[in-house]
Amino acid sequence: MTETLTHPTALAVGDDVADLLFRTARTTSLWTDAEVSDDELRAAWDLAKFGPTAMNILPLRVLAVRSDEAKARLVPHMADGNKAKVEAAPVSLVLAADPAFHEHLDTLFPIYPGMKDQLAPAVEAREAMARKNALIQAGYLMVGIRAAGLAAGPMDGMDNDGVDAEFFASSGWKSFMVINVGHADGEGSPYPRGPRLAFEQVAEIL
Amino acid sequence: MTETLTHPTALAVGDDVADLLFRTARTTSLWTDAEVSDDELRAAWDLAKFGPTAMNILPLRVLAVRSDEAKARLVPHMADGNKAKVEAAPVSLVLAADPAFHEHLDTLFPIYPGMKDQLAPAVEAREAMARKNALIQAGYLMVGIRAAGLAAGPMDGMDNDGVDAEFFASSGWKSFMVINVGHADGEGSPYPRGPRLAFEQVAEIL
Repeated sequence: MTETLTHPTALAVGDDVADLLFRTARTTSLWTDAEVSDDELRAAWDLAKFGPTAMNILPLRVLAVRSDEAKARLVPHMADGNKAKVEAAPVSLVLAADPAFHEHLDTLFPIYPGMKDQLAPAVEAREAMARKNALIQAGYLMVGIRAAGLAAGPMDGMDNDGVDAEFFASSGWKSFMVINVGHADGEGSPYPRGPRLAFEQVAEIL
Repeated sequence: MTETLTHPTALAVGDDVADLLFRTARTTSLWTDAEVSDDELRAAWDLAKFGPTAMNILPLRVLAVRSDEAKARLVPHMADGNKAKVEAAPVSLVLAADPAFHEHLDTLFPIYPGMKDQLAPAVEAREAMARKNALIQAGYLMVGIRAAGLAAGPMDGMDNDGVDAEFFASSGWKSFMVINVGHADGEGSPYPRGPRLAFEQVAEIL
């Protein structure tokens, strides 16, 4: 009799890690009272920052909204279904892309010294590069948050232009999502986990 | 005497895991002769699939290009600097976004049964949702590849329209990057690691 193996290939990480980062981690909306320290947020970034980006441009920027005053500025720009989630979360991270990432390229991408000046006039290209790579970094950060012992509740529904006008008028950062962060109460979610697509449903091998 | 601590907050994963997934992992271009099995690719997906997406839409699709015949179809559409990298890699994953993700929503997002039909006519919105969430999933997959014991060499430079015409004319998938995958030879890279931006350079706390 043939058994179907759930994980036929040995992973390079233990089951506890695979569970913590992926398999049992949940989009969290139920939090304990524990606060999130600056050091905990820094620990998440200090992992996520190593994830690769094109030309090492690292365009992801993070506004951590923790104080009541800052929450009161963010909440009106969230979709109705997300307002209470921001209010309930210990901290809400506004993820944004920085189209001025090229200012750092002499440091970040020293093997091509002219790249900073070459990109300076290419405003549209920079905006597209910033958004694309910041979104990939959002994936790294989600894992980094969990690896730092925190739980994440990502949300899409928001008025990005409103958030940008409220918080990023001078920096020019472009918001694209919010991740609520804290310590999960129990499983962190009142809902059953949604199904996923199997490898055969998403992949083709040639 | 005060010491500066590199990792002031205890992580929820061990140093070996933090190194494997982030801190010492490198964008790889040097590979051993070891092949990459279907099961290894499936193991990477079986972690990455659990990363959250908006409405659980899971729009990331993967074309794994492994045979000489398939490589010969992909290489001409890569930027000149990336052609040899595709030829050298045990397998090259073409990552793509599927604007027809809504076809799966009755299964993936059962709490809102009308979403599939509601999104059907919204072609532009579906393309934007697919691209945004597939990019976030690319970040999950990069970590999943490493957690499966493989190394990743992501690349941006390619003719996406050319790739889409060559491989995705019938599916409508939209390619956005390639990740070379295999087993790293040594560090996997002939270059020193690029610097990263510190938390204080990317984050603001309010």
